[in-house]
Amino acid sequence: MFSTEKLIKMALEEDLGSGDVTTLSTVPPGTTARALIKTKQECVAAGIQVLGLVFRTLDPSLKIEARVADGDRLDVGDSLMMVTGNVISILMAERVALNFVQRLCGIATLTSRFVAEVEEYKAEIVDTRKTTPGWRSLEKYAVQVGGARNHRHGLFDGILIKDNHIRAAGSIRDAIDHAIRQAPHGLKIEVEAADLDEVKMAARFGADIILLDNMDEDLLQKSVNFVRDGFPAIKLEASGGIVLENVAQVAASGVDFISVGALTHSAPAIDISLDLVS
Amino acid sequence: MFSTEKLIKMALEEDLGSGDVTTLSTVPPGTTARALIKTKQECVAAGIQVLGLVFRTLDPSLKIEARVADGDRLDVGDSLMMVTGNVISILMAERVALNFVQRLCGIATLTSRFVAEVEEYKAEIVDTRKTTPGWRSLEKYAVQVGGARNHRHGLFDGILIKDNHIRAAGSIRDAIDHAIRQAPHGLKIEVEAADLDEVKMAARFGADIILLDNMDEDLLQKSVNFVRDGFPAIKLEASGGIVLENVAQVAASGVDFISVGALTHSAPAIDISLDLVS
Amino acid sequence: MFSTEKLIKMALEEDLGSGDVTTLSTVPPGTTARALIKTKQECVAAGIQVLGLVFRTLDPSLKIEARVADGDRLDVGDSLMMVTGNVISILMAERVALNFVQRLCGIATLTSRFVAEVEEYKAEIVDTRKTTPGWRSLEKYAVQVGGARNHRHGLFDGILIKDNHIRAAGSIRDAIDHAIRQAPHGLKIEVEAADLDEVKMAARFGADIILLDNMDEDLLQKSVNFVRDGFPAIKLEASGGIVLENVAQVAASGVDFISVGALTHSAPAIDISLDLVS
Amino acid sequence: MFSTEKLIKMALEEDLGSGDVTTLSTVPPGTTARALIKTKQECVAAGIQVLGLVFRTLDPSLKIEARVADGDRLDVGDSLMMVTGNVISILMAERVALNFVQRLCGIATLTSRFVAEVEEYKAEIVDTRKTTPGWRSLEKYAVQVGGARNHRHGLFDGILIKDNHIRAAGSIRDAIDHAIRQAPHGLKIEVEAADLDEVKMAARFGADIILLDNMDEDLLQKSVNFVRDGFPAIKLEASGGIVLENVAQVAASGVDFISVGALTHSAPAIDISLDLVS
Amino acid sequence: MFSTEKLIKMALEEDLGSGDVTTLSTVPPGTTARALIKTKQECVAAGIQVLGLVFRTLDPSLKIEARVADGDRLDVGDSLMMVTGNVISILMAERVALNFVQRLCGIATLTSRFVAEVEEYKAEIVDTRKTTPGWRSLEKYAVQVGGARNHRHGLFDGILIKDNHIRAAGSIRDAIDHAIRQAPHGLKIEVEAADLDEVKMAARFGADIILLDNMDEDLLQKSVNFVRDGFPAIKLEASGGIVLENVAQVAASGVDFISVGALTHSAPAIDISLDLVS
Amino acid sequence: MFSTEKLIKMALEEDLGSGDVTTLSTVPPGTTARALIKTKQECVAAGIQVLGLVFRTLDPSLKIEARVADGDRLDVGDSLMMVTGNVISILMAERVALNFVQRLCGIATLTSRFVAEVEEYKAEIVDTRKTTPGWRSLEKYAVQVGGARNHRHGLFDGILIKDNHIRAAGSIRDAIDHAIRQAPHGLKIEVEAADLDEVKMAARFGADIILLDNMDEDLLQKSVNFVRDGFPAIKLEASGGIVLENVAQVAASGVDFISVGALTHSAPAIDISLDLVS
Repeated sequence: MFSTEKLIKMALEEDLGSGDVTTLSTVPPGTTARALIKTKQECVAAGIQVLGLVFRTLDPSLKIEARVADGDRLDVGDSLMMVTGNVISILMAERVALNFVQRLCGIATLTSRFVAEVEEYKAEIVDTRKTTPGWRSLEKYAVQVGGARNHRHGLFDGILIKDNHIRAAGSIRDAIDHAIRQAPHGLKIEVEAADLDEVKMAARFGADIILLDNMDEDLLQKSVNFVRDGFPAIKLEASGGIVLENVAQVAASGVDFISVGALTHSAPAIDISLDLVS
Repeated sequence: MFSTEKLIKMALEEDLGSGDVTTLSTVPPGTTARALIKTKQECVAAGIQVLGLVFRTLDPSLKIEARVADGDRLDVGDSLMMVTGNVISILMAERVALNFVQRLCGIATLTSRFVAEVEEYKAEIVDTRKTTPGWRSLEKYAVQVGGARNHRHGLFDGILIKDNHIRAAGSIRDAIDHAIRQAPHGLKIEVEAADLDEVKMAARFGADIILLDNMDEDLLQKSVNFVRDGFPAIKLEASGGIVLENVAQVAASGVDFISVGALTHSAPAIDISLDLVS
Repeated sequence: MFSTEKLIKMALEEDLGSGDVTTLSTVPPGTTARALIKTKQECVAAGIQVLGLVFRTLDPSLKIEARVADGDRLDVGDSLMMVTGNVISILMAERVALNFVQRLCGIATLTSRFVAEVEEYKAEIVDTRKTTPGWRSLEKYAVQVGGARNHRHGLFDGILIKDNHIRAAGSIRDAIDHAIRQAPHGLKIEVEAADLDEVKMAARFGADIILLDNMDEDLLQKSVNFVRDGFPAIKLEASGGIVLENVAQVAASGVDFISVGALTHSAPAIDISLDLVS
Repeated sequence: MFSTEKLIKMALEEDLGSGDVTTLSTVPPGTTARALIKTKQECVAAGIQVLGLVFRTLDPSLKIEARVADGDRLDVGDSLMMVTGNVISILMAERVALNFVQRLCGIATLTSRFVAEVEEYKAEIVDTRKTTPGWRSLEKYAVQVGGARNHRHGLFDGILIKDNHIRAAGSIRDAIDHAIRQAPHGLKIEVEAADLDEVKMAARFGADIILLDNMDEDLLQKSVNFVRDGFPAIKLEASGGIVLENVAQVAASGVDFISVGALTHSAPAIDISLDLVS
Repeated sequence: MFSTEKLIKMALEEDLGSGDVTTLSTVPPGTTARALIKTKQECVAAGIQVLGLVFRTLDPSLKIEARVADGDRLDVGDSLMMVTGNVISILMAERVALNFVQRLCGIATLTSRFVAEVEEYKAEIVDTRKTTPGWRSLEKYAVQVGGARNHRHGLFDGILIKDNHIRAAGSIRDAIDHAIRQAPHGLKIEVEAADLDEVKMAARFGADIILLDNMDEDLLQKSVNFVRDGFPAIKLEASGGIVLENVAQVAASGVDFISVGALTHSAPAIDISLDLVS
Repeated sequence: MFSTEKLIKMALEEDLGSGDVTTLSTVPPGTTARALIKTKQECVAAGIQVLGLVFRTLDPSLKIEARVADGDRLDVGDSLMMVTGNVISILMAERVALNFVQRLCGIATLTSRFVAEVEEYKAEIVDTRKTTPGWRSLEKYAVQVGGARNHRHGLFDGILIKDNHIRAAGSIRDAIDHAIRQAPHGLKIEVEAADLDEVKMAARFGADIILLDNMDEDLLQKSVNFVRDGFPAIKLEASGGIVLENVAQVAASGVDFISVGALTHSAPAIDISLDLVS
């Protein structure tokens, strides 16, 4: 809950350090102005509240007026926000504020493109834990804004038995058994499978969800068919190497979820700028 | 100095939260193993020390053996590091560790491509303040690893008078005058200019460095020629809309520095993974 | 992960403040000794690692020798730990160290008594979120040591729809529907029910687990019978007003889990003391 | 001063973690309501301000209306507070808020019972340093609310020479001498004594207060008589094994203070709940 | 930016610790009053905002009314501030508030005396990094208030090559060359010189500023003459052993800057007190 | 306990910020050397441990060899410490390390001069709460090293009823009465008195210690005589306007303690420097 405030403080501290030597020496104290924050690219807005919070963290007297809401689709030149008040404060917060919003809009925009690709299928796009350290909550929020759904937030709120766990546990069966007996009883058990044999074992030994990892089209379809026929209660998720170009094809296999790491680790920033208007 | 340790703790806390329910319920306590961290893409290595630090922050008893050094060029399949010790610790730190290194290698790799493009010119590639909040130091370090040079770290260690400052100060002349009289005397004065008139004023009123912002090829060349002829002591920097495709052309104008925001805000992550090997 | 270290620091700071005026003025610097930590009551040991950590946080040169392991049953007079080193350090850390271990042993001991009461039934004892603020992880750990199982750690790793949620959502059906559509797909859905009608609705609208809250013996049995007959996949949990005297009776109803708030909010401390032995 | 705010933040963080999956997925955003916080047991109210502070820390827009004051005696069903505002905020803060107040009311209630037992004697009930780590200030405050007086807050604001100090110093005389010469001159010197010989030495060598520790009725009376006869300026405190059943008898001996560890380490929580009322 | 708030919190915590036993036990709760803060010595006011911030950090309901502004020259008996509100809060914050302002006024006052001494010369007085740990920003601010100019804030925003660097680099030439090639291009290069040979080398190898360290009057004048004749673009700074008695003489040499460590490390505190006036 | 480590980190952060641009660009990585820390003035050594801790906090691999102990009297040119290891680390920590030790030696040195002045009297020199914010513990320690004794550490560990408290309480009698009844029973009661009437009342109403504040020689002597005659158990402390020139005269009055604010708020720093020796 308090992690965003902490990240904003860190960001202001790393940019301001001992003070803004340019602004403090060039701008007369007491000058006020309005500033408009505009996008130079089409995008999905995300992080509008954080954007305002950066300015207010630096100077609570700044007046913030949002022009859009998270989730809105913006055209080139659209204004996201008007900030009014002390020019020195506005210029000192400018870069940090933009650094937050350009990244969050980037994630929401990329996410919305993945979501659009699978619109006609039942598959839902979900994110991963491949997030920028320090940014987990913000990035997962931007994914939601982009129209996708969150997978678990971390290692603490979901069981996902991967190949490394299975190797360390000795067998899929042992891994699943241990999890059923020891993990909190409110968590479903998801198991990663890389081939049909693993899919079959995961299904038979009690997985609630099976993660079909890095499968080619043919293997993916066989896995989906096997599970749908014999274990209709089990949910299916696909992952690995999924890009905008192939995501619809993966969705066509009939899986319930498709997880995409690129949403959070490789979304390009949106070009957003601030200009004084008076 | 302590900011990387802080970011690592934040990242471990956001991923581990109240505990790793999968690993703790499936892996027998006391199991030990070796794990290899490998790249699945060609890249420039960066962040090897941070990578090890994540594991050691979680469990100081883990043994870290780096296989490469920052700046090394890696092929698909190359190992970056061997980690030996308690499997539970390795699996709990895995994702956070990879999240750090995949981003830093991504930045170093993209930077090295920009640097290669301008190899035959005197222009040096420099970064910007368009970094990921919380990551300023790490990202500027990865830029260095990729072969480029750092611009100022923040608002505190360099004077850069931009259009918003000039507007607030009233004129270029006033802005430069104020900076000369009030800012710490060890800082050079850099002034942003968007057209030839601004270049001329910046040069005449005392700029040490002029930032030629968003100029087309022709205007850029005229600006360079004007300054080189009349003000040979002034350094020149180009910025704005610079991509791999046009950076060589910009360098050919004869500028001293080319600043590229994409190095830090839009470098795609490198695909790096961890596998237990025993 | 780092929360226990933080709590230990807070505890040392609140006890030591500006310094231990008694020890520093009465004990000659450099004096060394051995100290034994003993229990004056029968108990289940818990928190042995934390106990040592308090001493080492204050003075890393102290030698810690555990005499028991978490989960061991101790008799009056049994030693938990020998601490060797600087007497001043030992006396400065003594009270804080004991304050930690007396509480954790208290929780493990009370938990073990509840567990013993239901030994012959399939029901498992689980804890609640009624923990001491700041102590969630430590207290949940002590519950495990006492032989019970953890319910969710917080609001983030388990869905539990209570009467207040239902009231705010409008109906049980709406609440369950919303949760299925929006919550992370790895979490089961648990619903609180106070009478048979609510049990029926929870079962029909898709609950994975039903929490039978504050029911008398008869109602509890009817609820269990209804669910077992019609919805064999649903898990059942009982809660509310459960004490050592009635827990076996509740278990006899056939529920899967019994949650007991008193484990963490009202376990009496165990009387444990430290004596210098040389 | 800031420690309560810190503990509240820690508590909210450990409960909320990455978010309240139940409330956020079931309660429509924007819903507002009133909630009443009521006690299900007779008790002495304590921590009303902290209770409100938890809600306001999570959401400063919540309206808090206290119905009782610290120190008030409450009957079953009495309301402690009305909270009005966003339902999502109320439900997210509910458990943490109750966890604070149930503990503080428990301590005040138990304290008031001890105080009542010794009403007719001059002895005052005082607390000890056997508090819950992290909770020193809050618990000592609840003891005051319950009608008792605080002993020293920590090792820094009172001299109490115990058997371990005497052993390390060599003799009672040396311990007292060192303390007189070196400790801040505004602190009285309290010395623990377990038998009559120790009482005599403590009195003769300059103790301002003598702590009569773990004495049986007869020895306690002899000790009191000895001191009252020969050293009328010395204050006397009894401690060790004091419970509600024997505290009046201890007070009858004529001591000035009776210290009771159970006030803070073993007070059972009061059962307090929150219900939405509209 | 947040460092002053942090220092205020630390200061309040170290003074208040577990509570103000005098005020809380002697002053009736709810009493309000006005307090005047006055100086008992002539001084230059500095830190008026911090003074108010201490009171407001402890109790946001206190009303602060500044009677002077930073930079004002005060006579004996002049009031700096009126504080109105809860007496307990005023008395709890009093000492910490005065401890801040007495030090900052002390620095501004001493600085103003140095500035007055060199009024008729072009030399500007600058500070050093010889500040009180934790106080860098506040002390550098008080120096500005006293009429002098800040040298670099720390090691990060200015290049100053000292004898230790030259020794480690091998030669002045190597040190300067490395700095030109590797340091951020917005920083000037300052080089320390202790004799005329070093001055000559620094000038010839590219220094932008030369620090003439610990030179006697004759050597200083020769150094200034050499540089002014041959390298008119180079700035000159004098340092070492500068006191009020000799600073005018140093300024007379024609240097641009004179740095004085005593401004921050040895300015005597101004005697300022708080009295309740109603 | 942890406050010194915190202050060291703050100090390193404020000096190093984003990095030491001079050292990192001029000194070849991997260079090692020895550095000697020497005093240029006679002084009493204090803070030797802190001095080493600053270097080790920045780089735990540095080897620290203390040449003196706290309390030693040093001549011009004496070495305090040898530091061996990475030159870059030594130069990065140098200024912060010296900033700590120059201040602590300054305080110990000034204190020792006050102590020497009163050597032949029974009066002990004590410090005050007029310390540098953030430095309370370190400065009080340096006072001890200088041979004086500490007064209370803060508002929490000593009762000192001043004129403002008396005014707020209504009368000296009320203030003393309230303190006796409500403050922790281990604290003595000290009362400030400015004239003989106040001395008489403080003595009669139960003060354990009387602070004779700002009295001239005659009044001071009369006050001492009055108390010694009628209240031999009461301790006496003098304060206000005490300087090296008059402290012996004050001691001659026969008081037990003399408190001197200047020890901590106005001690000039000692000139200490670091030189690389190989």
